[in-house]
Amino acid sequence: MKLTSQAKGTFAIAPTPFHDDGRLDDGSIDRLSDFYRDAGCNGITVLGIMGEAPKLDGEEALGVATRFIKSAKDMQIIVGVSAPGFAAMRSLARGAMDAGAAGVMIAPVPSLRTDDQITTYFRQAIEAIGDDIPWVLQDYPLTLSVVMTPAVIRRIVVDSPSCVMLKHEDWPGLEKISALRGFQKDGSLRPLSILTGNGGLFLDFEMERGADGAMTGYAFPDMLVDVVRLSKSGQRDAAHDLFDAHLPLVRYEQQQGVGLAVRKYVLKRRGAIASDAQRKPGSSLSAIARAEVDYLLTRLARTDKRANLSIQLRAV
Amino acid sequence: MKLTSQAKGTFAIAPTPFHDDGRLDDGSIDRLSDFYRDAGCNGITVLGIMGEAPKLDGEEALGVATRFIKSAKDMQIIVGVSAPGFAAMRSLARGAMDAGAAGVMIAPVPSLRTDDQITTYFRQAIEAIGDDIPWVLQDYPLTLSVVMTPAVIRRIVVDSPSCVMLKHEDWPGLEKISALRGFQKDGSLRPLSILTGNGGLFLDFEMERGADGAMTGYAFPDMLVDVVRLSKSGQRDAAHDLFDAHLPLVRYEQQQGVGLAVRKYVLKRRGAIASDAQRKPGSSLSAIARAEVDYLLTRLARTDKRANLSIQLRAV
Amino acid sequence: MKLTSQAKGTFAIAPTPFHDDGRLDDGSIDRLSDFYRDAGCNGITVLGIMGEAPKLDGEEALGVATRFIKSAKDMQIIVGVSAPGFAAMRSLARGAMDAGAAGVMIAPVPSLRTDDQITTYFRQAIEAIGDDIPWVLQDYPLTLSVVMTPAVIRRIVVDSPSCVMLKHEDWPGLEKISALRGFQKDGSLRPLSILTGNGGLFLDFEMERGADGAMTGYAFPDMLVDVVRLSKSGQRDAAHDLFDAHLPLVRYEQQQGVGLAVRKYVLKRRGAIASDAQRKPGSSLSAIARAEVDYLLTRLARTDKRANLSIQLRAV
Amino acid sequence: MKLTSQAKGTFAIAPTPFHDDGRLDDGSIDRLSDFYRDAGCNGITVLGIMGEAPKLDGEEALGVATRFIKSAKDMQIIVGVSAPGFAAMRSLARGAMDAGAAGVMIAPVPSLRTDDQITTYFRQAIEAIGDDIPWVLQDYPLTLSVVMTPAVIRRIVVDSPSCVMLKHEDWPGLEKISALRGFQKDGSLRPLSILTGNGGLFLDFEMERGADGAMTGYAFPDMLVDVVRLSKSGQRDAAHDLFDAHLPLVRYEQQQGVGLAVRKYVLKRRGAIASDAQRKPGSSLSAIARAEVDYLLTRLARTDKRANLSIQLRAV
Repeated sequence: MKLTSQAKGTFAIAPTPFHDDGRLDDGSIDRLSDFYRDAGCNGITVLGIMGEAPKLDGEEALGVATRFIKSAKDMQIIVGVSAPGFAAMRSLARGAMDAGAAGVMIAPVPSLRTDDQITTYFRQAIEAIGDDIPWVLQDYPLTLSVVMTPAVIRRIVVDSPSCVMLKHEDWPGLEKISALRGFQKDGSLRPLSILTGNGGLFLDFEMERGADGAMTGYAFPDMLVDVVRLSKSGQRDAAHDLFDAHLPLVRYEQQQGVGLAVRKYVLKRRGAIASDAQRKPGSSLSAIARAEVDYLLTRLARTDKRANLSIQLRAV
Repeated sequence: MKLTSQAKGTFAIAPTPFHDDGRLDDGSIDRLSDFYRDAGCNGITVLGIMGEAPKLDGEEALGVATRFIKSAKDMQIIVGVSAPGFAAMRSLARGAMDAGAAGVMIAPVPSLRTDDQITTYFRQAIEAIGDDIPWVLQDYPLTLSVVMTPAVIRRIVVDSPSCVMLKHEDWPGLEKISALRGFQKDGSLRPLSILTGNGGLFLDFEMERGADGAMTGYAFPDMLVDVVRLSKSGQRDAAHDLFDAHLPLVRYEQQQGVGLAVRKYVLKRRGAIASDAQRKPGSSLSAIARAEVDYLLTRLARTDKRANLSIQLRAV
Repeated sequence: MKLTSQAKGTFAIAPTPFHDDGRLDDGSIDRLSDFYRDAGCNGITVLGIMGEAPKLDGEEALGVATRFIKSAKDMQIIVGVSAPGFAAMRSLARGAMDAGAAGVMIAPVPSLRTDDQITTYFRQAIEAIGDDIPWVLQDYPLTLSVVMTPAVIRRIVVDSPSCVMLKHEDWPGLEKISALRGFQKDGSLRPLSILTGNGGLFLDFEMERGADGAMTGYAFPDMLVDVVRLSKSGQRDAAHDLFDAHLPLVRYEQQQGVGLAVRKYVLKRRGAIASDAQRKPGSSLSAIARAEVDYLLTRLARTDKRANLSIQLRAV
Repeated sequence: MKLTSQAKGTFAIAPTPFHDDGRLDDGSIDRLSDFYRDAGCNGITVLGIMGEAPKLDGEEALGVATRFIKSAKDMQIIVGVSAPGFAAMRSLARGAMDAGAAGVMIAPVPSLRTDDQITTYFRQAIEAIGDDIPWVLQDYPLTLSVVMTPAVIRRIVVDSPSCVMLKHEDWPGLEKISALRGFQKDGSLRPLSILTGNGGLFLDFEMERGADGAMTGYAFPDMLVDVVRLSKSGQRDAAHDLFDAHLPLVRYEQQQGVGLAVRKYVLKRRGAIASDAQRKPGSSLSAIARAEVDYLLTRLARTDKRANLSIQLRAV
């Protein structure tokens, strides 16, 4: 089923699982899919920045996407197709859609500066991949150094009918969500799904500002799913209570560079992947960092029963 | 009393208080000093990045430093003297020391790239201000885009006997603290005070990695003081419990740009400053953002009695 | 006389002359003024990026501007007032105008990214210095990393009636001149003086695209004056012949960082300043680089008689 | 024949020729090879930054490299294999060497900052592609924003026996060549070929500083060949005379972004490629820019007979 602007809930940003020697681990792709489904996710986004996408060659990338699509069953798969050039972007986008992806995600190249450069880039990108593919606009200034105002996002969305979702991870970005929802109220912007990233660090308030859900890779997607649900049903305090219990770990996982090592380590402890190896150049956890994560997990288990269970069962 | 490498505890990063019309508010400087002393701070750092230092002209900057020095009494005052050129840096540094400052703080200019450029810059800076002034090296790559390895920091410290402290706010920076403490164990680095910034977002683990304390401007310096104390006395769980209770607000205040508006708003609610105005170009809080902060304060008051008291008494 | 949008001809970007020990050299300021007047310049721009402005403290900056104003006589003086904050910008701008400056020049701060951030910055800057001061907008993306489209420049100019001139040094920037002149033809932009920088590297074609003259610091301002004159009077081949004769040196002087050392060295050889010292952190010429410049001067003297004369007379 | 540290002369940076509709133009690859051979080039570097390499997908890139290798005959082919990840870099590097390339060229990824990050990156890159492939280190800070000191370049070269050449295009970079040659004199650096880029803008003095030749894509490689030869045989004035005659066009072609459009336009006028089309996002020449290039060609033809001939014969 193709992605639409009605999408909501939680889309997990999946890491790409490798064996310890750097080969792709297809078995762990299947395990990850089961893990996300069990957590209640609505979809999975693969080959994002935290999916080590640039470390795969073209063939490997399509292979990973295809494997996720097969094991995802009823969950929707969004495939990151950001690339330095449009030829590679087109190859992967069309290949992924042929394999059954729900849509693709595109981030701007880091060299873009002016409003016009940004809107032109996305117009050309959609010309390249074709306007029949539903796509997600990724707005991630902290890492990409490209700053899009709400008005620029509106221009991109208005110009491209196939743009159905914003992956929002500006930081700080709460006012941006409010501004975009305001555009919709005043009729200048059509419906658009907004899912939020940034490792979940502001998910509590992002939901209250009008986000439709989460798209991030925090190693407890079950928390994301529940916070989204609680927030949507108006249980504000309960949503914050659950969120706050996880915040120390969310914060720890949100460290640039080493964050992916934390995430893969916890996913491995939870049994979702077999190895926490990254391809080079990658980050890794020192013994003391690992002990810090373990300490945070122990503290978390006191308040979140599900965390407790999963960690106990698979203790290293 | 001059700053030494034995410094520890909590140094508050003070905002610069303005009247609503942008004039400097000397009365609030005195109030802030009392507020930080009551919270148990050991010192105050003025004219830092969050002190809107670049918005003051040379005369105003020295005036602010001098006023803080007078009202600080037994607390040590560190004066940020970072400047695009050495003439202005020297003027302010010597003026501040003459007025009774304990030391100065210097950040690298953003254009520095290579290891040699960085070490040369600090060598020339110390030649300019004189080697008789104790100084703090500010390491803040996220904002300044200058990346210093532990080995580069060691070179700077070894080259400059008057460097007595590192203001650590690399992110992620836990391994950097461990590396520097490791240099000291292997004898390649002399004693150096390490106080940590980043709004306190990693203070819990930074203390465990070997930091001597906090140097940041979170609007509840009382929490910083207590976490530092609890951590030093080995009460790990208690330190984390207190820290975690504040983390939702710490995180909210740590948003780039709007963070200072949050901080000044809370300081105003706590009675520490009369106005939360910033000089242009500045950030401000929308009504909804203000309500979010109020909600976080309400939640905080449930767990931290002191927060409760101070907020109740001065409710807006 | 105040600067207007009718300004044209050559405005020299003056270096700030220092004694060998780094003190300001007032005598050389007077000599420079005479040198630029003899070369046929219409004005002088002081305290620009190549004027080592950030290395002066506030008092020194105003002193340099004032001295230039006194010795300039009938030439107009534009004072660079770019600063990290508006308080310092205002102090210098108002002080310089009181001392008799014709106008001021403002560059954007490097952190600006979006179109709105840029236009807001200049609006606030003009609020700060007052709208009664004629000002020059500096567009220099290579060094400042701020990219302004022609449409953004138009917005700034239309918003601020006191903006009378563009210092154009985008690179490549020829199409930008054509676009702005096109805006004027279609009536969407009022008259605006455009003087071009970039060390003169594209002056030949910039004039043909519609520039009103040069604003740069090449050590042979006499060439700039003549190329501007020849180009305006339609003597295309003659303009290019003269320009091409100087291009090898123009190119050599246009090296980032070391360029100022080249420029000051040639100005010293031509007798315009007493010392080619820069304040730290500065660049300097190796013996081999100095010999390369000497070789270029020798070659230049074969084709440009005036160069010949001035170099012969003051040979080191 | 594999590339060695004895390489010298001129290696042309080849553009990738496309048909007007964006398809690869194999026929023009053959024509380009003939053109460079006739000009006296010793080799060709393909898939560099000015070869629009990121716009090709993996299969296309290998196809282009292979076609050049076939048509190059006795000229050596160096293949640019820079990539965001090592998997793609390895695929292309091994594929190109299997097809008969002489070596590969690697540029650093733009995120690298510290000396250690840079040396680690190249160590990992060589682990990935294998240490049996002769490779060229590309040093291009202006575009890549990675700054390598001479000492860092030495560390990379000393660490990797398969590094045989530096593509030097720091700007300004003359002192860097002298520093590296100085390392060799003092015995701390083994033999290393240094070819220089930057569009040839400093080739005259780069040769005198010790470069072994040129590696750049200026549309008159015949000039590069002759300047290298004249300079090596000690005919200093003759080398500069020829260089200076071309400098106005060299300078015009060296404009960021639009430079490739100029280069392809001149190559088309000279009959070396059938179309000057670029893949999107690309640059193009306005009518007035094209007329400016034509004017420069006319002026050039007056002094350089070979330019005259080739342009006359194939006038558009």
